[in-house]
Amino acid sequence: MDLECFFEPEGVALIGATEKFGFGYGQTKTLIDQDLGERLFLVSPSQPMVFGRKTYPDISDIPASVDLAVLVVPARVAPQVLRECATKGVKGAVVQSAGFAEIGPEGRKLQNELTLTARKTGLRIIGPNCLGLANTANGFTTTESPQESMRPGPIGVIAQSGVFGNIMMDWGPDEGVYFSKVITLGNRCDVDESELIDYLARDEQTRVIALYLESIRDGSRFMSAVREAVKAKPIIILKSGRTPEGRAATLSHTGSLSGQDAIYSGAFAQSGVLRASAIPELFDTAKALARAPLPKGPRMAVATTSGSLGAITVDALRDVGLPLAELSEETIQAVRRQAPPWMNVRNPLDVGPSGLLVNGVRELMKDPGVDGVIAIFVIPWTIVKELEAIGSGPEQFLGDS
Amino acid sequence: MDLECFFEPEGVALIGATEKFGFGYGQTKTLIDQDLGERLFLVSPSQPMVFGRKTYPDISDIPASVDLAVLVVPARVAPQVLRECATKGVKGAVVQSAGFAEIGPEGRKLQNELTLTARKTGLRIIGPNCLGLANTANGFTTTESPQESMRPGPIGVIAQSGVFGNIMMDWGPDEGVYFSKVITLGNRCDVDESELIDYLARDEQTRVIALYLESIRDGSRFMSAVREAVKAKPIIILKSGRTPEGRAATLSHTGSLSGQDAIYSGAFAQSGVLRASAIPELFDTAKALARAPLPKGPRMAVATTSGSLGAITVDALRDVGLPLAELSEETIQAVRRQAPPWMNVRNPLDVGPSGLLVNGVRELMKDPGVDGVIAIFVIPWTIVKELEAIGSGPEQFLGDS
Repeated sequence: MDLECFFEPEGVALIGATEKFGFGYGQTKTLIDQDLGERLFLVSPSQPMVFGRKTYPDISDIPASVDLAVLVVPARVAPQVLRECATKGVKGAVVQSAGFAEIGPEGRKLQNELTLTARKTGLRIIGPNCLGLANTANGFTTTESPQESMRPGPIGVIAQSGVFGNIMMDWGPDEGVYFSKVITLGNRCDVDESELIDYLARDEQTRVIALYLESIRDGSRFMSAVREAVKAKPIIILKSGRTPEGRAATLSHTGSLSGQDAIYSGAFAQSGVLRASAIPELFDTAKALARAPLPKGPRMAVATTSGSLGAITVDALRDVGLPLAELSEETIQAVRRQAPPWMNVRNPLDVGPSGLLVNGVRELMKDPGVDGVIAIFVIPWTIVKELEAIGSGPEQFLGDS
Repeated sequence: MDLECFFEPEGVALIGATEKFGFGYGQTKTLIDQDLGERLFLVSPSQPMVFGRKTYPDISDIPASVDLAVLVVPARVAPQVLRECATKGVKGAVVQSAGFAEIGPEGRKLQNELTLTARKTGLRIIGPNCLGLANTANGFTTTESPQESMRPGPIGVIAQSGVFGNIMMDWGPDEGVYFSKVITLGNRCDVDESELIDYLARDEQTRVIALYLESIRDGSRFMSAVREAVKAKPIIILKSGRTPEGRAATLSHTGSLSGQDAIYSGAFAQSGVLRASAIPELFDTAKALARAPLPKGPRMAVATTSGSLGAITVDALRDVGLPLAELSEETIQAVRRQAPPWMNVRNPLDVGPSGLLVNGVRELMKDPGVDGVIAIFVIPWTIVKELEAIGSGPEQFLGDS
């Protein structure tokens, strides 16, 4: 694979390494802290030592082969540095510097030079104007993220905006969300979301693909990538620029033309891509899909100890177009045999304080007309404490036998 | 005020007090733990002592006056017990027992007897089939909720479903949400949401009113209550039974006829009531309204360090119909004077890493064409740690001077 060099690099060069607080400082610390040992080379034209480590004035001075270069140099020198990388035989470059197409025509010219080098030499580029990437499987990262977010998990993230990738990695652990790989795209002068979708579709560590995009670089290429990928794993997308005001905002942010939202919505629906409208929804959906097997169809059953949450859930199912399953006579009879007289045996199944939640869920899952079960456990906190006080656990309340 | 007895009772009688684990146990513990001292009377026809405290066989045996009775007796004896309460001169009763209208015609008959006693004697009833109420100002509560949720706060909650009230109180502290008063309504045989809206509108401790309803008992009474209350403080409602499936669910849950949702939506919009579609939205909206002054109009400005969050926010503003404010020439010039050349000075104001967030927000707030500012601070976690390491705080990153 062409993109392997980004995630499993042998030799890594950080060009623009610095111990001065400011841009480049975080990337330098991040890479040094990873114990890459002899595989990490720091390049700095001005500082002979950085954090007590020897530097090379130029990438051509490195006496070993380099797969991946991470660039934190000023935009104006990036095209020249990149050409030197190609000469050195570098396979991939992550350009984390800003000051390219997002700032106007002058920056766009510099960015075009990067693209030209990629086309001419085969060197692949992620960025510019990105915050790097992370592979939790081997602990390799060029992003400045907390240690906790490098715990391996099932969710692969592709984020157009660098800060967004950072937000995902900072927030994920608090929400119980862990990642396989995280890639921030930035201005996409070469590698884009479609190619990375192909890559994550084949990546064994990734069970769910989550994307944040402001625009799609190549519509037909994207459609064929997602159509293929959804056969292997679910894809959830948070796309901003849904409204005219939002589109204007993305234009000034990453120079993206977001396009008519109705076209995207239709395309996502046709290809089986799920759409989230906010970060918590992106997290929750990715988490649910990563933890539970995919339902074989849309017919949902709801079991709950709280009638109100049952009603809210049923409203939400209707909103997203998932029908309530019709329970079989066998299921109804099986639950009724165990249920107290006051309990309504139907879908949603509100078991109240009957202790029937676990057995109820079991019966619902056996029903061939039920494709998925949403089980909503609510045990008041004081009840949990009281059960603990009498030496019991919540299992008893839930009826887990 | 008629309802004062529920929140500021002098003498309190718990009828059905028990130390046996099961219904009534939690309420007994909750009331005993509150140090009501000589103001709390336990009533039990069968147990002379409960948790080491003397009980009275009957409410008529209590040698003092009682304002409030809390009933945790079986439904079938509740009507008789309630009549005895009226005879004793009790002003209010919270009937936390279940087994009334929600279980069918027989229970409805018992419930009608409660209503009849209320009408005939003037004794007011909250419930039946509810989980009680709480007043954080004086620490009085008949609900089983964790201690943390009794910390006084600005949000008054009226929940039709008892479990929902419990969920709010259990979850609130985790979300930084604190309550003034929480009332669970249950089957509403006497006191209903409209009367409590009147009460909370006048309650000084309450700055925002949050409701969970499956139905509205008296539409025109409700409309006049909210029209009056919104003049004093914002009202947010989470109403389930929005869809045909959800309506069927509420019918079997609290016997509520949810009615056509479009009628509710129209009525809420007309009267200035905000609507939430899920619990986190109810929390977030209540929290925001309780903490910030109400904007004088709908024109919003957005300031952010993250272009993607800015774009997502602008989409969300459009979704809820809040226009982006047009910035005055003065504001644009004032920000531009402080901004680096790459910064786009517009609304949304994406300050990136310029350090201009705080000053930017200040300029936006001065603009007479801006009714409200949404400031989105994003500081990557590693930057926070690095700033701490060099003895600085996030203020520097935000540009707080």
